Amino acid sequence: MPPSDETLADPDTPFAVVELSRAQRNAERLARRMRDLGVSLRPHTKTAKALPATALMHGSKPGPITVSTLAEAEAFADGGYTDITYAVGIDPHKLPRVVALLRRGITVRVLLDSVAQASAVTAAAREAGLRIPSLIEVDCDGHRGGVLPDDPALLAIGRQLHDCLDGILVHAGESYFATTAAAQREAAAHERDVAVAAAQRLRDEGLYAGTVSVGSTPTAHATDDLAGVTEVRAGNYIFFDLVMAGLGVCRVEDLALSVVVTVIGHRPEHGWILTDGGWMALSRDRGTANQAVDQGYGLVTDLDGTLLPGLVVTGASQEHGILTARDGHPLPDLPIGTRLRILPNHACATAAQHASYRIVENGRLTDTWQRISGW
Amino acid sequence: MPPSDETLADPDTPFAVVELSRAQRNAERLARRMRDLGVSLRPHTKTAKALPATALMHGSKPGPITVSTLAEAEAFADGGYTDITYAVGIDPHKLPRVVALLRRGITVRVLLDSVAQASAVTAAAREAGLRIPSLIEVDCDGHRGGVLPDDPALLAIGRQLHDCLDGILVHAGESYFATTAAAQREAAAHERDVAVAAAQRLRDEGLYAGTVSVGSTPTAHATDDLAGVTEVRAGNYIFFDLVMAGLGVCRVEDLALSVVVTVIGHRPEHGWILTDGGWMALSRDRGTANQAVDQGYGLVTDLDGTLLPGLVVTGASQEHGILTARDGHPLPDLPIGTRLRILPNHACATAAQHASYRIVENGRLTDTWQRISGW
Repeated sequence: MPPSDETLADPDTPFAVVELSRAQRNAERLARRMRDLGVSLRPHTKTAKALPATALMHGSKPGPITVSTLAEAEAFADGGYTDITYAVGIDPHKLPRVVALLRRGITVRVLLDSVAQASAVTAAAREAGLRIPSLIEVDCDGHRGGVLPDDPALLAIGRQLHDCLDGILVHAGESYFATTAAAQREAAAHERDVAVAAAQRLRDEGLYAGTVSVGSTPTAHATDDLAGVTEVRAGNYIFFDLVMAGLGVCRVEDLALSVVVTVIGHRPEHGWILTDGGWMALSRDRGTANQAVDQGYGLVTDLDGTLLPGLVVTGASQEHGILTARDGHPLPDLPIGTRLRILPNHACATAAQHASYRIVENGRLTDTWQRISGW
Repeated sequence: MPPSDETLADPDTPFAVVELSRAQRNAERLARRMRDLGVSLRPHTKTAKALPATALMHGSKPGPITVSTLAEAEAFADGGYTDITYAVGIDPHKLPRVVALLRRGITVRVLLDSVAQASAVTAAAREAGLRIPSLIEVDCDGHRGGVLPDDPALLAIGRQLHDCLDGILVHAGESYFATTAAAQREAAAHERDVAVAAAQRLRDEGLYAGTVSVGSTPTAHATDDLAGVTEVRAGNYIFFDLVMAGLGVCRVEDLALSVVVTVIGHRPEHGWILTDGGWMALSRDRGTANQAVDQGYGLVTDLDGTLLPGLVVTGASQEHGILTARDGHPLPDLPIGTRLRILPNHACATAAQHASYRIVENGRLTDTWQRISGW
C-alpha cells in the first residue's frame, strides 16, 4: 500500500491500535521457544481474530491454528489455512458447518468431553461419509470443561469416537492465576503430565491419540520440557496485556494493543480527567482486579507509548473513561483534546470491542487489520 | 418480509434475540408517561443502536433522539432523523463531522462543560459559517462530567458559546444506585431542580437556555413533576435488564433482550453446566455485583422465556458460560444441545457484543435488526 502520512493524531478516537514491532517481537519470541523445544506451535486466533496477526505468528505462511468460533474457522479457511482446531466443546447443531469445511478439504478438529457429543459426531460423520477428527478435552485443573484423566468416561468417549478419535487437548486455566515463574513452570509441567498420561491411557486401550495438544500463554512461555506433547496452543501473546504483565509473562513494554482516546473533560474537585474511552472502547474486563496490582480499566501512555506515571483508568461508563492518579503522583496537566493510549487489562476482551485495528510503525499508520466477528 | 418458519431453535448459538412484544410494551410505557407529564421524549439510541428499536420508542416516525457516538448520529441521519443530541462531551477533533451533519440540515447538538470546548465550538462555527447548537453539561451528583450548577464556569461557558448556546443537559448517574422508589423519585426531583436552576442562572445573565434536558431510565420512570424541563432522555428501557430489575424500575418479565446459548458440557463434580455463551456473547459486565442480589453474568430461562429457578451464569470465559444453581435449587437436567436464554445484567453492554439481533414474535423469528457499531 502507498506510504501513509497518517499518524495516531489523525483518526477520530477511540480506536484500537497495534504497535507492529511489538506484535512481531512477541510472535518471534514464542515461535523461537517452540522451535528450540522441537514442538509445533498452533497459535490461537481468538485474541486478534485477524489474518495478518496470525500470519505474524506463523512467519507469514499459513500453518496450524486454533480457533474459538466457526466464524474464525471459515474466515481462516478462506485465507488459505487448512489445519484448524476448533477448541470449544462441540454443539451438535454446529456440525453441518464443520462438515462443510471438511468437504472443502480443510482439516477441522472438534473438541468434546462427553459420550453424547461423541455419538453426535460419529452420527454426523457416518451421514456425511467422512471422518470428523475429534479431540477429547481433558481437564488438568478444574477451570472449565474436560474429563478427568482417570475418569472411565475418557475411554468410553474414545471408544464411541472410534476412527474419529484424533487425540487429546488440555488447557491449564489455572496458569492465569500462577503468579510466579515457578508456579507457571509447575502449571506447565502438570498440563503436560496430564496430557501425556491421558493420551497414554487411550493408547493402552488400543485407541488412537496422535495429537497431544497443550497450551495457554503462561504455560507456553514457562515450559522447558514438552516430551510426549505434539503441539502447543497460545493466543494472547501476540498482543499481551496487563494481566500477563501482572503474572510476569511479559513486560508492560511488550503490550502491542492499545486504545487511543482523547481528553474531553476535567473534574479537579474529584481528581479526575475524563476521556472518550469508556467500556465500549476498553471492555468491561477487570482481569487485574484480583492481581497484586489492580490496574483498573488500564494504564495510560502518551501517543508515543511512554507511560504516564501513576495514571490509571479507574472508572468507565459507556463512552467515558475516568483517569485518576495513584501512589502520590500528581494529576498531570492534560488539556482538552490531548490524545492518550490506554493499555488494556485483557487484550482478548478489549480487541473484541473494535471492528478493526490501525497498525502503527514508527509513529505512522501503515495498515488496517479487519477483525472476524460473530460466531 | 415473507413469513418465517425459523424459531429460536434454528440459528447457531450464541445469538442475541429481542422479544418484540416486550420491547413494544417497554417503549409504550415510557412514551405514555411522558405524554401524561407533557414533556418531549428524546430516546437514547445507545442501548439498542438499531433504527427499528428507536422507531418503536417513537411510535414509528422519526423524532428527537440522543446518541452516544457520531456513528449513531450519521446512521440515524441517513435514516431520516433530523433532531439529534450527541450526549458525550465534545472532542474538538470531531467537530468537522458535526459540521458535515449540520450542513445536511440535521440539527446536531453537542455537549460540553469547559470554556476550552466552547472556544473550539465557536471557532468551528465561525469557520463553517453556521451555528453549532451546544448544551452545557451540568453535574447534579458527581458521577461523570459537567459543571456544578453554581460554578462561575457555567456563565463563562455560556458567554463563550454566545449564540451557539442552546441550553443545558443533566444526567442523574446516581439514580443507577437508587434502590427504592422513593430514592429514585428523589434523584429525579434533584436532577430536575439542578437543571431548572442552571437554566435559570443562564437566563438571569441574559443567556439563552431553550433546552432543559434531563434523564436516565430510573429517573424518567420515577419522576412525577417535570416543571421547567423541556425534554427527557432515556435509552436502556427499550430492553431493560437485570440491573434495572434489581432497582425495581422493571420486572424480570419485562426484559426484552436475551442471548440464546446451548449446553455443551457438564461438570457434576463442580455443580456446573457449561454453555457456549461466554463473555464474548454476554459481555464482562457485572452490573448487579453490588446490588442486593448478585445475578452473576445473568439469569437463565428456557427457550420460551420461563425462568429456570435458581440457575445463574456464575462464570464466563471467552466462549464458555458456567451455570450453577443457588438457593437450594437442584441443578436441572439439561442434556448436551439444550438451548437456553440468558437475561443480561446490562443490556447496553451485552447488546454491544453482537452485530445484529434476531427478532422473535410468538416463538417465530420475524426480522433481523442490524446494530450500528464503532464511533
